[in-house]
Amino acid sequence: MSIQLPLKISGTFLDEISHDIPHQNWGKKEWDADFAHMAKMGIDSVFLIRSGYKRFLTYPSNYLIEQQGCYEPPTDLVEMYLVLAEKYSMDFYFGTYDSGLYWETGNMLHELDCNKYVIEEAYKKYGHYKAFKGWYLSLELSRKTKGSVEAIASLGRQCKDVSGGLPVMISPWIDGKKAVLAAEGKLAKQDIVSLQTHYQEWDEIFDGIKNDVDTVAFQDGHVDYHELEHFLNINKELADKYGLNSWTNIESFDRDMPIKFLPIKFEKMLLKLKAAQKAGCSKAITFEFSHFISPQSAYLQAGHLYNRYMEYFNEEN
Amino acid sequence: MSIQLPLKISGTFLDEISHDIPHQNWGKKEWDADFAHMAKMGIDSVFLIRSGYKRFLTYPSNYLIEQQGCYEPPTDLVEMYLVLAEKYSMDFYFGTYDSGLYWETGNMLHELDCNKYVIEEAYKKYGHYKAFKGWYLSLELSRKTKGSVEAIASLGRQCKDVSGGLPVMISPWIDGKKAVLAAEGKLAKQDIVSLQTHYQEWDEIFDGIKNDVDTVAFQDGHVDYHELEHFLNINKELADKYGLNSWTNIESFDRDMPIKFLPIKFEKMLLKLKAAQKAGCSKAITFEFSHFISPQSAYLQAGHLYNRYMEYFNEEN
Amino acid sequence: MSIQLPLKISGTFLDEISHDIPHQNWGKKEWDADFAHMAKMGIDSVFLIRSGYKRFLTYPSNYLIEQQGCYEPPTDLVEMYLVLAEKYSMDFYFGTYDSGLYWETGNMLHELDCNKYVIEEAYKKYGHYKAFKGWYLSLELSRKTKGSVEAIASLGRQCKDVSGGLPVMISPWIDGKKAVLAAEGKLAKQDIVSLQTHYQEWDEIFDGIKNDVDTVAFQDGHVDYHELEHFLNINKELADKYGLNSWTNIESFDRDMPIKFLPIKFEKMLLKLKAAQKAGCSKAITFEFSHFISPQSAYLQAGHLYNRYMEYFNEEN
Repeated sequence: MSIQLPLKISGTFLDEISHDIPHQNWGKKEWDADFAHMAKMGIDSVFLIRSGYKRFLTYPSNYLIEQQGCYEPPTDLVEMYLVLAEKYSMDFYFGTYDSGLYWETGNMLHELDCNKYVIEEAYKKYGHYKAFKGWYLSLELSRKTKGSVEAIASLGRQCKDVSGGLPVMISPWIDGKKAVLAAEGKLAKQDIVSLQTHYQEWDEIFDGIKNDVDTVAFQDGHVDYHELEHFLNINKELADKYGLNSWTNIESFDRDMPIKFLPIKFEKMLLKLKAAQKAGCSKAITFEFSHFISPQSAYLQAGHLYNRYMEYFNEEN
Repeated sequence: MSIQLPLKISGTFLDEISHDIPHQNWGKKEWDADFAHMAKMGIDSVFLIRSGYKRFLTYPSNYLIEQQGCYEPPTDLVEMYLVLAEKYSMDFYFGTYDSGLYWETGNMLHELDCNKYVIEEAYKKYGHYKAFKGWYLSLELSRKTKGSVEAIASLGRQCKDVSGGLPVMISPWIDGKKAVLAAEGKLAKQDIVSLQTHYQEWDEIFDGIKNDVDTVAFQDGHVDYHELEHFLNINKELADKYGLNSWTNIESFDRDMPIKFLPIKFEKMLLKLKAAQKAGCSKAITFEFSHFISPQSAYLQAGHLYNRYMEYFNEEN
Repeated sequence: MSIQLPLKISGTFLDEISHDIPHQNWGKKEWDADFAHMAKMGIDSVFLIRSGYKRFLTYPSNYLIEQQGCYEPPTDLVEMYLVLAEKYSMDFYFGTYDSGLYWETGNMLHELDCNKYVIEEAYKKYGHYKAFKGWYLSLELSRKTKGSVEAIASLGRQCKDVSGGLPVMISPWIDGKKAVLAAEGKLAKQDIVSLQTHYQEWDEIFDGIKNDVDTVAFQDGHVDYHELEHFLNINKELADKYGLNSWTNIESFDRDMPIKFLPIKFEKMLLKLKAAQKAGCSKAITFEFSHFISPQSAYLQAGHLYNRYMEYFNEEN
């Protein structure tokens, strides 16, 4: 019997409109080089983390600039990413707009309103690119936002309606001990979800989204390394029950350190890749390559992580 | 009609005695290279952020070492900066001493006492350098410190008296939503100043300093990007009313991120430069080049910011 | 009379199993290069900060993996360090295991239980290496943990019993104003120890450990630079009284900055080396070379610190 290799990372988010990770100020040359590094590592799909955040945009959206007071962006990143995705034979998933209000209020109505226009506009503008292969709903669900299930489902439905049924992905978080805000001083909290409650709540949520979402890739960084496999097993079981794809979103930054955030230790990433393999996840994506794994990242630890990763999979193969 | 370019940055602070930005440990070779990078970008003036902070000094001040218990510095940075400023045809502004007490107590008396000696000593020691072109009062005013208006004015007067009237600059902060301490966990606060209150309070402050200060360069990072122009307009209107120069201090670090602080996204800098142009600021300086814009900064994002900045102004011109 | 040079750094911790410093993801090539840099700077001894932390290990310990649920490490770092120490003629000190429980509960019983096995296992596995020259007790004492004196002593005794009396080192912290947690927002606190209380409490502690510990290297970063010499004098006086070696542990990271932690300013390091010289410390070690002083550190400020250090001691000599 042959030994099973850990799951390899074959997708990454693109975090250009950033919530809490400082910008690298790359131009086209650096982005092209980064896609080349990704391809070499085996990445075949890229996911725009969001097309806009508050007033900042990745593409010149008439609707968001004129109706929502967003700033006109200096470059069209969506177009650039689509061209690069095509060049490197990758699938591109478009991330919806995030006004920031949902994070503050828990209310998704405004997000739904805005994205009705954004989804249509984006598909009209960029849907003809061969690399445009799906949608990523940037509004992160968790147990605390169960009330938003119908909103998420309707957003997914809209994406599909507009694009002839292109697949829709979400990446929720587990309410584990590391589910604290980046701006908070502490690294862990006490009041965390049990496996049983996680099962019950997500059973309900998956049931509500099953027709309008194709893929669920849970963020894997909020629980401890030895707990992860148990959560991934539940996620897989529920995904199978409702006919969804169960991916994993391997966080490549380290949640255990006071600097929020720098690249993760390779050993920790490996533990998570092994857990994903055991739980039967069908694909591993990461948040995200360009800051935390890329050889040209401003965080030099990232390049060493890349080297350790490449060594590991080349030596083992 | 020709399109107006955003204001270009033509000055930078030198942050060698640091409050909250980690040191780069540069020697003379690195500082010389940095001045060369500055010159290439169009910087013609440098402002020493402070000549000393608590017990750490930029120059071997007999007064501060013997009377105030400061540490003898391993090198004379003021002399080095003056020589480099002369080499690269830049104006050098000397920043006053900051004992740290004012930040803790809000009381400026001790600062006045110390700086009476420091200003005299510094001008005697360095006033003969051709590059010595003015003074920067390092005690940052804001609405909370209105009571210090007379103190600031008397400090300015002293600088002028000692140096035959060399110009005096201050760089206050706007009490906006991002006016939180670097060591605080949060990134924004609720209790912020309105435009009207800003006008009223600074009308009073400008009136009090008009004879003893020449230039006001407000820090531009405490309000949101779309609010900035309105504040800059008020600043300009008040500066004109009282015969002061209205510059802007473009912060080149990012206040929106949990790591405090890394280089700002170029798009954000550009928004601020455009707002400064529209508001009619006559000069843009930055805090600060060496950590946040320099191609040799330890933060590699800074070099990319430099490249984006150079591209932008070369392509547009 | 010749002028006394500051004490030179001749030892460093190896912080591979990290508490609060992000990992660099180095492989064997990078570690070999790092030992070469250390040797060039005059380092002759390395101290493993801990052999394991919580579930993460530096070596494949059967006991910790099978009995304590630790993760099997991807490489044997202890072996690699011993081989490198031998190659570069350095002494290696083995750091005990830290389960994390002591930090949370203040209770040392579990640490004693675990380390009884770890110490034996480690010496059996690695004691034959010529570079294996001593032990470092990773459980950091301070005044708050006076109750643990007997525990520390018994741990030291065990190390000696197992290894034919190899020397034992500890590195306690002074309860000064910078003794705050890395994850806390603030940089300093009010409730600090006086010199007198420091003397009294450590007099008692030293008395309790004098037979089982050889060397005490206090961390030097929790008090202000001008206070340090006074504390070092007391430490030296007490060490002499009880026949212990009095080293100093020069922290090479900066505790005064909001980013926790980046390399220290050279001037600050120099103040501390001078204070150590004056107080008669017989050796200076640092926490730690690879992140904060190494020319290949991901923090580029470290390489400049290395250059400043080398310049200083070469020019002065």
